[in-house]
Parts: sequence; structure tokens; C-alpha cells
Amino acid sequence: MTNFKGLDILDGAQFSREDLEHVMAVAADFRQQLAQQPGLDLLKGYVMGTLFFEASTRTRLSFETAMLRLGGGVVGFASAAGTSTSKGESLADTIRTVDQYVDVIAMRHPEIGSARVAAEAAQVPVINGGDGAGQHPTQALLDLFTIRSERAQVDGTTIVLCGDLKNGRTVHAGVELYKHYDCKLIFVAPEQLKMPADITAHLRAHGVTVEETTDMAAALAQADVFYMTRIQKERFADPAEYERLKGSYVLTRELIERVRPNATILHPLPRVDEITTDVDALSNAAYFRQVQNGVTVRMALIALVLGKVE
Amino acid sequence: MTNFKGLDILDGAQFSREDLEHVMAVAADFRQQLAQQPGLDLLKGYVMGTLFFEASTRTRLSFETAMLRLGGGVVGFASAAGTSTSKGESLADTIRTVDQYVDVIAMRHPEIGSARVAAEAAQVPVINGGDGAGQHPTQALLDLFTIRSERAQVDGTTIVLCGDLKNGRTVHAGVELYKHYDCKLIFVAPEQLKMPADITAHLRAHGVTVEETTDMAAALAQADVFYMTRIQKERFADPAEYERLKGSYVLTRELIERVRPNATILHPLPRVDEITTDVDALSNAAYFRQVQNGVTVRMALIALVLGKVE
Amino acid sequence: MTNFKGLDILDGAQFSREDLEHVMAVAADFRQQLAQQPGLDLLKGYVMGTLFFEASTRTRLSFETAMLRLGGGVVGFASAAGTSTSKGESLADTIRTVDQYVDVIAMRHPEIGSARVAAEAAQVPVINGGDGAGQHPTQALLDLFTIRSERAQVDGTTIVLCGDLKNGRTVHAGVELYKHYDCKLIFVAPEQLKMPADITAHLRAHGVTVEETTDMAAALAQADVFYMTRIQKERFADPAEYERLKGSYVLTRELIERVRPNATILHPLPRVDEITTDVDALSNAAYFRQVQNGVTVRMALIALVLGKVE
Repeated sequence: MTNFKGLDILDGAQFSREDLEHVMAVAADFRQQLAQQPGLDLLKGYVMGTLFFEASTRTRLSFETAMLRLGGGVVGFASAAGTSTSKGESLADTIRTVDQYVDVIAMRHPEIGSARVAAEAAQVPVINGGDGAGQHPTQALLDLFTIRSERAQVDGTTIVLCGDLKNGRTVHAGVELYKHYDCKLIFVAPEQLKMPADITAHLRAHGVTVEETTDMAAALAQADVFYMTRIQKERFADPAEYERLKGSYVLTRELIERVRPNATILHPLPRVDEITTDVDALSNAAYFRQVQNGVTVRMALIALVLGKVE
Repeated sequence: MTNFKGLDILDGAQFSREDLEHVMAVAADFRQQLAQQPGLDLLKGYVMGTLFFEASTRTRLSFETAMLRLGGGVVGFASAAGTSTSKGESLADTIRTVDQYVDVIAMRHPEIGSARVAAEAAQVPVINGGDGAGQHPTQALLDLFTIRSERAQVDGTTIVLCGDLKNGRTVHAGVELYKHYDCKLIFVAPEQLKMPADITAHLRAHGVTVEETTDMAAALAQADVFYMTRIQKERFADPAEYERLKGSYVLTRELIERVRPNATILHPLPRVDEITTDVDALSNAAYFRQVQNGVTVRMALIALVLGKVE
Repeated sequence: MTNFKGLDILDGAQFSREDLEHVMAVAADFRQQLAQQPGLDLLKGYVMGTLFFEASTRTRLSFETAMLRLGGGVVGFASAAGTSTSKGESLADTIRTVDQYVDVIAMRHPEIGSARVAAEAAQVPVINGGDGAGQHPTQALLDLFTIRSERAQVDGTTIVLCGDLKNGRTVHAGVELYKHYDCKLIFVAPEQLKMPADITAHLRAHGVTVEETTDMAAALAQADVFYMTRIQKERFADPAEYERLKGSYVLTRELIERVRPNATILHPLPRVDEITTDVDALSNAAYFRQVQNGVTVRMALIALVLGKVE
């Protein structure tokens, strides 16, 4: 197994199945501890830098909550406005500066590859909280952890990924983890937003069963896990085409109850219209538990890279 | 008495006199403890979300200081910029997300009723830090607590409220609390900015003695407590009218010393010109102690809704 | 020696040599303690206000990290947007408000003299984190501490200050400290950006040996410490003149190794092009250690003004 102490968490592909199992075991243990007490003392005195060059309230607050629940403190910024970058400083210099202050860095940045640049500049571990259209490994890990929590195990499940599979870094990062499990993947997307061919080829080469379809209901009928994502208007040249497609990728309570009442419903959020709010009350609608799992998974990663848990 | 554990704090009207007395007793106890030590350990491990969709440094820092002095931690944001709302997420979904992270939410939002929407979406208690022209219950509570601190008791006092009584949520929230006490209320405002008739009617129906006047000095002559608020230029169609009125609602040291030297002077701040700075040095100018009381009152509310004090 | 408890830290000129030695001794002690544990419990329960009316990620995060490592908490803001100043509140009133919340204030503000205004309004100690083109005493102290750390002592060293010496508050604040030591100062700047004559006169009157030149390499040849600063384009009426000069004030690895391989290289950062990145790997390139020293020096100042260390 990878030695996590001092490790940068940059993309989903860096993990072996054994690594994934270990992160999830640590997260499960933290979840159990938090059921008995509001927070821990494990990282007392430690400081995390949350450097969000791109705003993301959900992800930033999740990282910060994770650090506070572990007993540590947080410094950082919520947007690039006012950072030294605007005075012409390089990203590497900004990172080297914060590196002098903190014990671990969680970063989000609009440019692909920026997390790796930061990891090379910093001596402390860097956790990628999303680098543009690139990677988002903590989201992928919390998705996997949620599937395991909701379904008891990942092996043997059929996972449907639906929506914008071309541009969604969440699903790209996710399949890098699912490939280690004996599960079947079904990709549901309009033609313009299909999963890139190199990714499906990579998965099949890895022995994963992959199906592709444009028919959401047919995929749902097979789903143990249905992972919905948002289709973004700005990806379409023709607004009429967008409107037409948008309507065919809306998950309703009626559809779920009719076609596959027990499928676990996930969504990385924010949700706009693609899951109707009447779905929320279903016991298998797991997207807000998914948000909560983000905290425990990030607690696990922070504690691991700081060498405070085995 | 209301059971505070898990309670949302949404508006002043939700409290009975017994409730108010209890919140103030807890606040007084915290104030005494803070006189002996910088902070407490009561909320160690707990996390508060301060969600300020509308900027308010005074209120936000007051809530955050309260949580830190109780030993807890804080995550949040200081303005709506960069929140998921800008990606089309509903307020309810944003709240449900933060609900997974934190133990209590303090929120300010520009829209009336938003605090109630948040309280319905969240499982953790929500404390309204101001919802547009709606309610601002923590301000009303700290005002009441300040009157009790400065005057020993609220019963038997004559309270003058002066300024923009039509639009001021601070005074609207305040009278909802004063009505539980045996005190006389005098409203001083220009005709255009009078206290809404339904509020004065509601107070009189509740047995409160209410007087209305446009004469500030005459009211001051009767005041035990003089609560000043700002008259905002943008409320007037005719700028000349604004200038004329503004001048007649300025509280000076000379006036206080001549007319009513021992009146307790309050103001919710920020103050612009309506209290001259030479008033600040008077021992009965209590508006900065009022600010300080905001911290202890918010400590009391946070600890109460988390069930950490009886 | 000055009694630090309750003291405002406003400018470099307020310190005697004995004061400087004391601050550095406390900082060195904290550095040693942090080598053995991530943080201390010294300021448990205390709260600092970081009021950054002007954005500065480097300085703000340094102050906040210092407070967290001491065991305290932080409230504040990172820019003037949304503060009560925009509602017409005076700086003094804003400070008096925060004064009710916190135990110590660290402030940055774009106007010269604002730190003194704040110190007069506040009862708690105020630490100036930069007031416009005015003072920046914590930067000067961390520079001095870095020189002592890197060179064992400050007496006997030749310190070269290079770049924009006319407008740079960092160098203006620095020479106020260096004058207490037996060191030689060499100022390197283009004619347009020379150190103001009143400052050189003040230093000479104080018995300091001062040389002035436009020749960077000649100065470097004598340097024990070479302190580089950025030349800002906006200071020049003629862009061509800027381009010509900029080129002559770039510190390269080749130049250092040829002329003065063991000079300690400092820079307040951010760095743009005036030190090439190949210099970073030199063991005597100390500018990132300088950043780290900022945390321990600020820890020393915070603990001193709060009376928590002797």
C-alpha cells in the first residue's frame, strides 16, 4: 500500500484498490468517532491552508469543516481576488509562501495541472480540490465511499453515470476509482456530451464492462447506483437543442418509483432542475448524505497525509 | 418556558417574557465568566456556519467571536459572491448542504422570509442574523439586554425610539420584546418615516403605552433610554426635505446635558452624523457596550440552541 | 526596555535596540518550540481581529497563522468590500466596534496614518500590518530577525538595499531598525527612485555609514546581505526608461556566484522578474525562510502585547 504520510493527493489514478480501501476504512472510523463527539483533538496545533483561486463554497467549507473537526485550524482565501497573483506573482511563489505557514494545503484552481505545479513547489502535502477541467480526486473518493456506505459494497454493482460525461471532471475522476472494482458502468449522455472515447477504451482495457446509451430510463432500469450530473447550457451551440435534451435528462420521483425504486441516487451538487425536489424525500436519495461523507473522507485524507493515522 | 435545544431563532415575536429573561440570565452568566478568562471550552469540537449572503461585518464578527469564545470553530462566507446560488442552486439546497457540515447556522440574507426557508431546510438550528427588511432578533435581544444592564431593570422605563421607524427592522424587532415589559414607548420620527400603524395598534392592544411625536427634544426630556437610528437619504423623494429633517434629528452632547443628562443612549450602529462624536465620552452613552453585549447574547443563544446550557 | 503589554506596534522608529533584541529573543524561542510541536496553548480563548481594508494574502495569512499557532482564534475581513465604511461609518467607529470583540487587532489600510487613528480608537493593542505608503513595522522586524538568523549577528554586516527606495515602505521601515546596529548601508537605485534625502540624512546623523550608487554589481560585491525589491512600472512616465532600468536591476544566479557567492539574498515578496528563479536553489537565498520568520516574529509581537510572555 502507498505510504500516505507526506503524499500529495492529485488525481484518482494514483490510488490502488488497497489505497482506496484504506482511505475508506479511516473515513468510516472517523464517522463513527463523530457520532459520539462533535470533534477530535488529533490535529491540535496544526494549520491547513485552503487556497481557493476559484470560488467553491461547498468544497471549501467541506475541507475547512474536516480540519476543524480534527482539532486543527484554517487560514486561506475564498477567491483569487486580492491574492499576490494579481501583482504578477507566479503560482509556484504563492504556494512556496503558504508552504512556510501551514502543514497541509487544500487547493482549487481554474487551470488544469495547477495542483501538480503546487505540489512540486510545496514541501507540505497538497490536496487537489479541483483543477479546472482536470481532476477532483476528493469528490471521486467521497462518491465511492458513499456507494460503499449505501450499498454495503462496490463490487457487483451496476453504476449509471448520466448527464454531461464529456466535460464532467467528477465522472472522469470517478471512473478512475470504479475501475478497481468488479462493477458494470453504464454511461448515459446525449451524443454531444458522450464520455471521451479514450476513457471508455482505457476502462475496457482494464477489464471494466462499459455500456453507452442515450436512454436514461433504460439505464435506470439496470441501476444499483444512479449518478446524475448537470447538463450545462453553455456547452451547446444551438439553444433549441439544449432545451430539447435538458428535458430528457430529468430524474423524477415518478420515474424512479416506476422503473427502479431502490436505486441509490447520487449527485455531486449543485443541482438545478435535473433531479426534481420530490426525489429528496426518498430514502435512497443519497446526495445530501454524499455531502456529509465529503467531510469524513477529507478528514481521512488530511489525517493520512499528515501521518496522524496509520 | 420554551425548550431552546434545537430551536430556530427567527424573530422577536417567538419569545415569551420568561424566554427573554432566561436568555438574558445565560448571557449575564457568560459575561461574568469572560471577565475571568478569555474563552470557554463549552463548545469544543462544535462548528458554526456563518452564511452571510449580505455583507455585515459587525454582525458576522459578533457571531464568530461568540462561537470562538465558547471554544467552537467557524466556517462560512461573508458575501453571496461565489456561492452556489450563482450557479442556480436554491437557497434550500445550499442550506441542506451546510446542514451536513455544521452544528448551528447563523445567517443573513437580503430577502424577507429567507431565514424561515433556511430553518425549514436545515435540521440544525438556524439563527436569523437579519433577513432583509424583515427580522433581526439577535439585535433586539442585545438591545434589551443592554437596557437591563444599564438601567438594572426594563420595567418602569420610558424608552424613546428615534429616527427612521418606518423601515428600521431593528426597532420593529425591538418593540416585539419591549411589549412584554411594563414600559412606556415614545416614537420620534418625521411624518414620512413614522412607525407603521399596525405596529402601534398591536402594541396598544398588548397594553403598551405608546406616544408619537416629531419633537426629539421633548421626547428626550422623558427618556430613560434614548434609542437613536439613522435616517437614510434614499428614503426621500425631495433631497431638500431630507436635509431639513436630518438636521432636526441629531443628538448632541449639549442637548443631552441640557435636557436629560442621565438618559441611556443607544444606537444599533453604524452611526453617521445622527449622534455627534462628543457624546461618546458620556458615561451613559452605551452604544459601544451595546456592541459588546451582542457577543454575550449570541453566546447565550448558540449555547442554548445546542443544548449546552439549561 | 519598553513595556510591551498593551503596546500598539505602529512603526519601526518606536523601538530601541533593547526592544528589538527582546522581540527577536522571544521569536527565536517560539521558533524552537514550534520545531517540537505544531502549536502552543498560550493564547487559548483569545481572539485576534485581522482587519485588512486592503488585500494582502501574504501578510494576513502570516498574522492568522501566528495567532492559530499560539492557540488563539481569528475573526476579520480580507478586503474593505462590505465593511461598514461603505455605509459611511468612520474608521474610528469601525475600530471601536471590533475593539469590543477581540483582544488584539492586526490591521492593514491604504491610508498613511490610519494605524495611529485605529490605535487611538481602540483599547486593545493595534499592530500595524501596513498603512499605505507609511509604515510596515512587522515586515521590518522579520527582515531584521532573518538577517540575525542567517548571519548570526547584525553588527558588522554590510546591507545593500536595491530597487525602488523612494516608494518602498519596506525599506523605509527597515532602515529605522538597522540604524541601531553597527552596520553599513548601501542604497542601489535608479536616480528617479533614490532613497529620500531626509532619510539618508537622518541615518547619517544617527552615525550610520551610508553609500549610494546606481551600480548593482558593485554594491553586491560588498554585500553581506542583499535586499532586493521590485521596481514598479507605474512609477515611470516613460515606459522605455522603465524597460531599460528594469533590465539593470535583475539579480541572477550567475551574477551572485561570480560576484558574491555567500551574500544572504532577501526580498519582501512578491517577486516578479527582479530575482531569477534559478537563484532560489542557492542555500543563501533566504527569502522563503524570511516568509517563515514572519510567522514567529508576529507570534512574538502578539504574545508580547497581550502580556503573555515577559
